[in-house]
Amino acid sequence: MSDRSRIAVDAMGGDEGLAVMLAGVARARRRFDDVSFLLVGDEAAISEGLKSHPNLSQHSEIVHAPDVIAGDEKPSQAIRRARTTSMGVAIDLVKQGRAGAAVSSGNTGALMAMAKLSLRTMPGIDRPALAALLPTLGDNDVVVLDLGANTECDARNLVQFAVMGAAYARTTLDLGSPRVALLNIGSEDQKGTEEIRDAAQMLRVAGHLPMNFTGFVEGDRLSRGEHDVIVCDGFSGNIALKTAEGTARFVGDLLKRAFTSSVRSKLGFLISRPATELLRDHLDPNNHNGAVFLGLNGLVLKSHGSANERGVATAIGNAAKMVKADLARRIAEDLRHFEAKAAA
Amino acid sequence: MSDRSRIAVDAMGGDEGLAVMLAGVARARRRFDDVSFLLVGDEAAISEGLKSHPNLSQHSEIVHAPDVIAGDEKPSQAIRRARTTSMGVAIDLVKQGRAGAAVSSGNTGALMAMAKLSLRTMPGIDRPALAALLPTLGDNDVVVLDLGANTECDARNLVQFAVMGAAYARTTLDLGSPRVALLNIGSEDQKGTEEIRDAAQMLRVAGHLPMNFTGFVEGDRLSRGEHDVIVCDGFSGNIALKTAEGTARFVGDLLKRAFTSSVRSKLGFLISRPATELLRDHLDPNNHNGAVFLGLNGLVLKSHGSANERGVATAIGNAAKMVKADLARRIAEDLRHFEAKAAA
Repeated sequence: MSDRSRIAVDAMGGDEGLAVMLAGVARARRRFDDVSFLLVGDEAAISEGLKSHPNLSQHSEIVHAPDVIAGDEKPSQAIRRARTTSMGVAIDLVKQGRAGAAVSSGNTGALMAMAKLSLRTMPGIDRPALAALLPTLGDNDVVVLDLGANTECDARNLVQFAVMGAAYARTTLDLGSPRVALLNIGSEDQKGTEEIRDAAQMLRVAGHLPMNFTGFVEGDRLSRGEHDVIVCDGFSGNIALKTAEGTARFVGDLLKRAFTSSVRSKLGFLISRPATELLRDHLDPNNHNGAVFLGLNGLVLKSHGSANERGVATAIGNAAKMVKADLARRIAEDLRHFEAKAAA
Repeated sequence: MSDRSRIAVDAMGGDEGLAVMLAGVARARRRFDDVSFLLVGDEAAISEGLKSHPNLSQHSEIVHAPDVIAGDEKPSQAIRRARTTSMGVAIDLVKQGRAGAAVSSGNTGALMAMAKLSLRTMPGIDRPALAALLPTLGDNDVVVLDLGANTECDARNLVQFAVMGAAYARTTLDLGSPRVALLNIGSEDQKGTEEIRDAAQMLRVAGHLPMNFTGFVEGDRLSRGEHDVIVCDGFSGNIALKTAEGTARFVGDLLKRAFTSSVRSKLGFLISRPATELLRDHLDPNNHNGAVFLGLNGLVLKSHGSANERGVATAIGNAAKMVKADLARRIAEDLRHFEAKAAA
């Protein structure tokens, strides 16, 4: 088995603990049976935990790391402890070529700082960005980035995010010329911050880019399926992503209240249950877990801190698909191709 | 009838046209039968439109204004045309004391600029903010501000928004010490921009403020009913508000698909329809229309540009309630009270 089909997992990160991480990895392993794992963290605890997962146990190695990055640890502090922590060691396994991707449910800021320091950004990219696929009403999911890696961004960062997001959409969603929009608070040219307006100007004149720049998109049209890539700074992206998650749950909670408000509505609910369960499934954040840092020389995925077993399995599954698609190399090639075209 | 119970309506603003505005005002008039209206805009067109609304016609005067502010007009350009436009004249009627509030569905940036120039900010407030009440799972709605009046804000602006939002919650939601949080991308102290961290620091040490500062809130907890006031810059607030609207509609659309996916689910839908219609009603943005500019010496409300007749009626109804509650004066008193306390 080649090293590339191995995934390094930070077994200690996340709010739900080691048992949930291992159960999630074991679940993913049942679906992706050609992938093996490097489980990074406290050797004794992982070894004990693996007793409940004989299949995973057979297809994984434990890599000991004595320390764990805390959820509230500052990135600047975390990077000094990279070598001894489960998160830092998992990333390093990617750097060494011993794993095709690293997955962690731990501290996002620390993960980003460590990944950047260890793997370095691709040529032509100043800052990596956190990207995820969100569900839409259309045929495809939409790539949204940055989701929180960079609190503040200049126009140049946003343009690079657009290029990386388009490359991700081309390789993952198999689209020739993805429709790329900038998230803004209005669709008119003068709306938003100077950074966004400047980025729009740069994208408008960049006809050589293998994308179709469609201008500004507002928050209410994220899920309409009208765009393939939506670009924003990490602050806005995080607010949009979490507000969307929270609102979906809010509507779900109201729906539950509505359905249990009378005997009649309970009956209706029972009858239409198969349909509403499909919907619940479609909206469950655990089924969309696993954001990826784009722009690094290697794949690092962030699983939601509160992801359950199914959520962890989704993130690991996404990592397996990206490893198989050789995503990092393909994005780098795509960027080189674009640069060659731009220089021509 | 006193002038205070009169509402000035920019009859020409908004995407839906004069007929929808007039129908909305007429609908509101049926619910608030002690309110009268000053309908501002093209006299001939309004006069013609009023023929379909005899009740409204009896309780309104037309104030002629020859011009209309365009949806994409720059605020800096719009303010030069204030005197001749329906939007500018409606605001001026508040300044003259001839109306207790002005309502417009037009260009938000222009409305904000004109309102600020004409009515001026309250003592102690540098910039007004756009605030709205959003539905939650709790007993009360939550006040969210700023929703788009100020694209970029410093810490001092955010603290003033907190004070105004708390005053709004005290007067509108009848809460003694509203729970106030800052919207951020994490709950830990070091998260977010410098402006947000500084604002948090200022609010933490301001024990004399008549509010309970609860720290940072993330986008996924806006609707949980855990806070009474959520404070943010206008860019993030607009993204959050519109993403919430869009996601609620997205879930509704998926639900519709789910319910029509089989005969069985259609049957279940028909049976539980009264419950789901209550839900639809609860989430319809037209039932939450009408954001108010806080911090001005007078009430100016923004109705959604695409609001339908019911949406316009909701915004006018909100204006009527604020006029009756004498909201602008009560917020000014509340702010003075706080300043006296701070100085003591």
